[in-house]
Amino acid sequence: MTELKPIGIIHSPFKDLNDMPIQPAGAIGVKGTVEVFEEYHDGLKDLDGFSHIILLYHFHRSQGFKLHVVPFLDSESRGLFATRAPKRPNPIGLSVVQLDQIENGVLQIQNVDILDGTPLLDIKPFVPEFDAQMKVRTGWLETARKTVADRKSDDRFE
Amino acid sequence: MTELKPIGIIHSPFKDLNDMPIQPAGAIGVKGTVEVFEEYHDGLKDLDGFSHIILLYHFHRSQGFKLHVVPFLDSESRGLFATRAPKRPNPIGLSVVQLDQIENGVLQIQNVDILDGTPLLDIKPFVPEFDAQMKVRTGWLETARKTVADRKSDDRFE
Repeated sequence: MTELKPIGIIHSPFKDLNDMPIQPAGAIGVKGTVEVFEEYHDGLKDLDGFSHIILLYHFHRSQGFKLHVVPFLDSESRGLFATRAPKRPNPIGLSVVQLDQIENGVLQIQNVDILDGTPLLDIKPFVPEFDAQMKVRTGWLETARKTVADRKSDDRFE
Repeated sequence: MTELKPIGIIHSPFKDLNDMPIQPAGAIGVKGTVEVFEEYHDGLKDLDGFSHIILLYHFHRSQGFKLHVVPFLDSESRGLFATRAPKRPNPIGLSVVQLDQIENGVLQIQNVDILDGTPLLDIKPFVPEFDAQMKVRTGWLETARKTVADRKSDDRFE
């Protein structure tokens, strides 16, 4: 099947898997940059019209996976696919971040919950009609999702 | 870099790249199933608490890419990363679908805009606090995104 190839590198203040924000909602105002490799610069045309973008990236520090995990926001073991834990069969991360500016193939972004040096796989425009559902049930996260801004990662997925 | 491996197969009424809905918003009520391979069934625990899930999948019928494309919702050429076109450097698709039921590793889903037989790469729970932004700018899609329900694909990405 297709092999993933990085199209850029994500830079952030987070040099260590410990003590990171959990999700962009826990990283409001945290600034970072996305350095898109030169051969892909032409594909960034029109992107500056969007205030928010979806980044897909490689969880490059995650090796292997377990089908049951205790997520950061819980103390109980949960099915892997009911969590956003980084160790997955296909270790692809997804974050919706704010896009402030694009210059010379470098994107200035905010609300960054991504490890410094993470390989970028794709950028997609965030469009509420496509990507947002507001009337939802969120299972075990129903209470915990509201506390995400105050929580940090620890060493459980190293 | 990591090679993608399918963890299941997505089934839908769409057997052909032509005449498909564009995005889940254009496929309201369209039903499909996700068949998760048996070795991953344990990872589905707790997922049934969520009404909406994010599917990541392989655009397996898309070969190659161009950095400028004329998207389905427009008549002008746009930068690839400002569109959701399937031919991308890493051909990974993303859809937020409604989850109705899980039984024996088969997920019954709705609002399916995905080609029948598409290889599944990942399932993540959809959580508004993580994934939804409502105060946004959406560039060239500002008007077109509201017409997505009435539009269909054609042969431009075959």
